[in-house]
Amino acid sequence: MTRTLDLAVIPGDGIGPEVIAEALTVLRAAVGDSVEVHETRYPLGAGHYLATGEILDDATLDALRQHDAILLGAVGGDPRDPKLAGGIIERGLLLKLRFAFDHHVNLRPTRLYPGVTSPLSSPGDIDFVVVREGTEGPYVGNGGAIRVGTPHEVANETSVNTAYGVERVVRFAFAEAEKRRRRVTLVHKTNVLVHAGSLWQRTVDRVAAENPDVTVDYLHVDATMIFLVTDPARFDVIVTDNLFGDIVTDLAGAVGGGIGIAASGNLDPSGAHPSMFEPVHGSAPDIAGQQKADPTAAILSAALLLRQSGLDEAAARIERAVEHDLAGRGNAARTTGEIGASIAEFVASST
Amino acid sequence: MTRTLDLAVIPGDGIGPEVIAEALTVLRAAVGDSVEVHETRYPLGAGHYLATGEILDDATLDALRQHDAILLGAVGGDPRDPKLAGGIIERGLLLKLRFAFDHHVNLRPTRLYPGVTSPLSSPGDIDFVVVREGTEGPYVGNGGAIRVGTPHEVANETSVNTAYGVERVVRFAFAEAEKRRRRVTLVHKTNVLVHAGSLWQRTVDRVAAENPDVTVDYLHVDATMIFLVTDPARFDVIVTDNLFGDIVTDLAGAVGGGIGIAASGNLDPSGAHPSMFEPVHGSAPDIAGQQKADPTAAILSAALLLRQSGLDEAAARIERAVEHDLAGRGNAARTTGEIGASIAEFVASST
Ligand SMILES: CC(C)[C@H](C(=O)O)[C@@H](O)C(=O)O
Ligand SMILES: CC(C)[C@H](C(=O)O)[C@@H](O)C(=O)O
Repeated sequence: MTRTLDLAVIPGDGIGPEVIAEALTVLRAAVGDSVEVHETRYPLGAGHYLATGEILDDATLDALRQHDAILLGAVGGDPRDPKLAGGIIERGLLLKLRFAFDHHVNLRPTRLYPGVTSPLSSPGDIDFVVVREGTEGPYVGNGGAIRVGTPHEVANETSVNTAYGVERVVRFAFAEAEKRRRRVTLVHKTNVLVHAGSLWQRTVDRVAAENPDVTVDYLHVDATMIFLVTDPARFDVIVTDNLFGDIVTDLAGAVGGGIGIAASGNLDPSGAHPSMFEPVHGSAPDIAGQQKADPTAAILSAALLLRQSGLDEAAARIERAVEHDLAGRGNAARTTGEIGASIAEFVASST
Repeated sequence: MTRTLDLAVIPGDGIGPEVIAEALTVLRAAVGDSVEVHETRYPLGAGHYLATGEILDDATLDALRQHDAILLGAVGGDPRDPKLAGGIIERGLLLKLRFAFDHHVNLRPTRLYPGVTSPLSSPGDIDFVVVREGTEGPYVGNGGAIRVGTPHEVANETSVNTAYGVERVVRFAFAEAEKRRRRVTLVHKTNVLVHAGSLWQRTVDRVAAENPDVTVDYLHVDATMIFLVTDPARFDVIVTDNLFGDIVTDLAGAVGGGIGIAASGNLDPSGAHPSMFEPVHGSAPDIAGQQKADPTAAILSAALLLRQSGLDEAAARIERAVEHDLAGRGNAARTTGEIGASIAEFVASST
């Protein structure tokens, strides 16, 4: 009996459709005949919103919920468009999906592949993964303001952290570490954010006691910045909150050779909701439709999708093909389609 | 009539006393006979707290208030000491001073001096200043927790932002830009922290309209990470909130050649309270007392102190001497005292 994989595909805005096209070609090549892949496309994003007034209605959310996994390109329009101000698409679509589908683990691996140039002069052997909490912290929308627009305005933002929410993501990080080099670094700001910091630190201490073979350390988020550019090879698994994770992973992507190759998975590891896979990069409207975007981040996100779906061999095939492609890349300019085709070809030849 | 400069000196913990000794030698050399420098030493810090149980009492705070300026080395003890847990010294001393003396501008310049090695392979011409808000944001201590230690714990942290607090620091940033390359970048996370973000953005827009000769742009804090390692030369003045400023300035220090040379001023530009000058680095207890610390950050902090005190020529003499010293440094290992003496000598010879 052939296995099926029922995908929701959200190509999105800007370069999203271009990179997603390549990711799907490579994904299909990787699974070959062993998996029947169904694709349902959802035309969501800034363009769709400007055309229809809809960002993400309940019916669409219910439809998305039925799929095995979601593959997303990038969403977001021209940042100077006043109709898109205040992150209306990011919050109404991307964050809404993460919260609705309980994507509490935002998994973001960084690896400096051979052949890839880091902006660091001595990057060392960069290979770590950030486990970013995805459903709490300052992302909960728990802020407000009074006297807006007056000299007496007060605008507050609240970071919410729960024992339930922190523990499950810390446990996930330790499980990842067990599969890797067995080293977990908690990143926070416990000397200032004392209540949230204490909850994170106590949770890590407790889970660490259950995993004595894992080495655990702690870094303030500011000190983490320094180590990420002076000794990124020291990291194996970083576990951190939603906002610190956002900041750390963009820097991680940059030192690991650029967000053109940085993949991510928004996971509900319980399987109760579909997980969602997306490149870390945005929609880059300035180069959209020109075949200039690097589809590698989207392709590696498809590999994460396959691994999360239990298709480890197909995922590994993609990762090997990307590794091969990056190693031989040099400085030759290739189109989005050429990069995708070359990776797909190597995947097919290794099946 | 000789001018006087009445300094409060807090050498602090770890390498603090060593670097402060050099900073004072250089400061005295820079002002020469033109200024009568008074020093009053305050033995505050983790060591003092462990010995006496006092962090910063009201009488000491009142005494500090009488000085023209405060020069601080570094405070903080062994991070694993349970008696120092939860940032008790950082909050009870450093942050208490910043709040009590209304240090709403935390000024942190970054410059890649000739002769200094950046961890970036193509750093370019790095020369910018971060204007970090110092009395609001998530630093206000406005958090709390319920059901602590149970599976139902909820720990919140609140970022407080006011029109009053944001406007004064934004105005300071524009005034800095007018003295520099006339470019201000607001760093925030307006697409997620919508209430605080909107206040910051509207304030920048309003002040920008009054300063049409200043070019203004906006970057999300995550994207800022990328630019700080791929194109740090693009920045002139960054204005940002307390927490983002903490994160951005450690990365800035690192790409600008290391926090061994990163200086900072905690300013109350109104002059109502003494401003406080300190290196960005911490107390580094592991190398304390070994003459291994680089006193340059403390020396450059003393230069900021002189400039803030209206002693621009003396400040410039220190900066030129540091520039000279850094340019000739190479890889030769020198003690803290040797570096300080060499800079002081150059300062004296240029007076
Ligand atoms: C678009 C934005 C809301 C999002 C985030 O902050 O999580 C993005 O930066 C990311 O990292 O996926
Ligand atoms: C010690 C700590 C409270 C402090 C801060 O977060 O402001 C430090 O990191 C700094 O940047 O001066």
